[in-house]
Amino acid sequence: MNIKPLGDRVVIKKVEAEETTKSGILLPGSAKEQPQMAEVVAVGPGGVVDGKEITMEVKVGDKVIFSKYAGTEVKFDGEEYTILRQNDILAIVE
Amino acid sequence: MNIKPLGDRVVIKKVEAEETTKSGILLPGSAKEQPQMAEVVAVGPGGVVDGKEITMEVKVGDKVIFSKYAGTEVKFDGEEYTILRQNDILAIVE
Amino acid sequence: MNIKPLGDRVVIKKVEAEETTKSGILLPGSAKEQPQMAEVVAVGPGGVVDGKEITMEVKVGDKVIFSKYAGTEVKFDGEEYTILRQNDILAIVE
Amino acid sequence: MNIKPLGDRVVIKKVEAEETTKSGILLPGSAKEQPQMAEVVAVGPGGVVDGKEITMEVKVGDKVIFSKYAGTEVKFDGEEYTILRQNDILAIVE
Amino acid sequence: MNIKPLGDRVVIKKVEAEETTKSGILLPGSAKEQPQMAEVVAVGPGGVVDGKEITMEVKVGDKVIFSKYAGTEVKFDGEEYTILRQNDILAIVE
Amino acid sequence: MNIKPLGDRVVIKKVEAEETTKSGILLPGSAKEQPQMAEVVAVGPGGVVDGKEITMEVKVGDKVIFSKYAGTEVKFDGEEYTILRQNDILAIVE
Amino acid sequence: MNIKPLGDRVVIKKVEAEETTKSGILLPGSAKEQPQMAEVVAVGPGGVVDGKEITMEVKVGDKVIFSKYAGTEVKFDGEEYTILRQNDILAIVE
Repeated sequence: MNIKPLGDRVVIKKVEAEETTKSGILLPGSAKEQPQMAEVVAVGPGGVVDGKEITMEVKVGDKVIFSKYAGTEVKFDGEEYTILRQNDILAIVE
Repeated sequence: MNIKPLGDRVVIKKVEAEETTKSGILLPGSAKEQPQMAEVVAVGPGGVVDGKEITMEVKVGDKVIFSKYAGTEVKFDGEEYTILRQNDILAIVE
Repeated sequence: MNIKPLGDRVVIKKVEAEETTKSGILLPGSAKEQPQMAEVVAVGPGGVVDGKEITMEVKVGDKVIFSKYAGTEVKFDGEEYTILRQNDILAIVE
Repeated sequence: MNIKPLGDRVVIKKVEAEETTKSGILLPGSAKEQPQMAEVVAVGPGGVVDGKEITMEVKVGDKVIFSKYAGTEVKFDGEEYTILRQNDILAIVE
Repeated sequence: MNIKPLGDRVVIKKVEAEETTKSGILLPGSAKEQPQMAEVVAVGPGGVVDGKEITMEVKVGDKVIFSKYAGTEVKFDGEEYTILRQNDILAIVE
Repeated sequence: MNIKPLGDRVVIKKVEAEETTKSGILLPGSAKEQPQMAEVVAVGPGGVVDGKEITMEVKVGDKVIFSKYAGTEVKFDGEEYTILRQNDILAIVE
Repeated sequence: MNIKPLGDRVVIKKVEAEETTKSGILLPGSAKEQPQMAEVVAVGPGGVVDGKEITMEVKVGDKVIFSKYAGTEVKFDGEEYTILRQNDILAIVE
């Protein structure tokens, strides 16, 4: 993976409903179109962002829950990713 | 429970009206669809969030009243939870 | 009363028009549906809220005037209360 | 007068057009419904409000011009008052 | 003139198009209804306003250009004035 | 030129499309009505503006690109100028 | 290239879909009208912008992904460029 997010941004890849079920998450019905589970594939350096010191709390490989509609979707090597701010990540699922 | 909320976020589970009555809260009629009572099931680490030092004041097991519509609903292991910021929790009920 | 408001929040109980008249306040006509007088029943600890040091200036028992529509209404033990920020309290009436 | 405004709030009583004319202000026609002249009847303590140190610059008895629609109207002892922030007072008229 | 503006406020009196032409400004056609030239008639003390130290840069007698629609219009001794923040004054014309 | 902009404001004069072409800029078709190229004719002193220290980076004579619709248009000595904040200037063209 | 962006601004040139494919990015269908890949052609000096210290993290020649609709489009020497803030650049692609 050769995308280097800037500042407090994180690149995530949405986890499909099938995989999600394996890890214990059930996304029924209409929610399937808006999966909120993703895996972190790249993490920005953090540091001073908008004048505030940001420490990155997520790392590559983390399974995370993120705000619906947050971030920007990009296509890279035929795969879809989302780039969002760490602040739009709600929780890490272990 | 293996959801680790980030920053000042808190994971809560809404308390049903039946349980609510036991603890002395009465949620009549239309309010039943919007229970504002919940139990805290996971608490973020707090620390510097958006450039401000946040101390977490709630702990796992607290019964809390929270702002209607606040936070994001997620399904996990077949159960529904809400992830919100501590600031959207109005009060602890004892 | 066992509601512990968080941060700079205050729990108030609206004062009925009849009681209001006794204390010298007259709320005529349409204003009766929007009483702005209330008694403080619980006060949060204050401290650092949203990165700002807040000192609580109201105390339990104070009669206060508050912003119409401010805060969140909750039912507790069959009684209706409003939880709002101290900043939504305009004045103390003595 | 026994209203104690909180923080940087000020209680004012609107001056009627007749009195206004005496003090040299003319409020013609439609403006009569929106008098902007008032007398200060109570002044909050100032201090740290929303994290900023506020010094009160108006005092009881000052004639002031204030922003139309600013503040909240309250009735007290049969009289109408407006509670607003000092920042909504534009000028003192001497 | 006995209006004392508070904080960083300034009282200005709009300059009529006729006078404007003398000082070299031409306000053609529809712009005549929205003159942006004015003379400063009173200046607030400045100091800490909204938590920021403000130094007043305009003085009584200055001819200034100000933002259209900025400020509040008041009538005083039969004359119309505008009270605005110094920040709504764009430039001094000499 | 005797307009003295306040704070971080800058007075610019839009450059016509003909001149623009000479300096290498081509503004085709509909863009001609919204020239974004201008020459700086007056620069404010900078300093503390809205509580932030601003250093002026443009100087009289600079050719600049600015945000469409930014600033306020004024007529002076029969010429049209725009007064805007330095922050609305995107780049200097050399 | 003789455009000198001010502050934390960056001048970028959008990368056409053909080139994009070579570097491994696939922009299918409707997305072709909104390429989000660009090459950095000029970088502002950074420094204190809006009161915050900004360090420039991108350099001329970087391939970047940026927020759709961010920035201002300008034509220069017959070529189209976009001027945006570094904060609107999401990631560097290597």
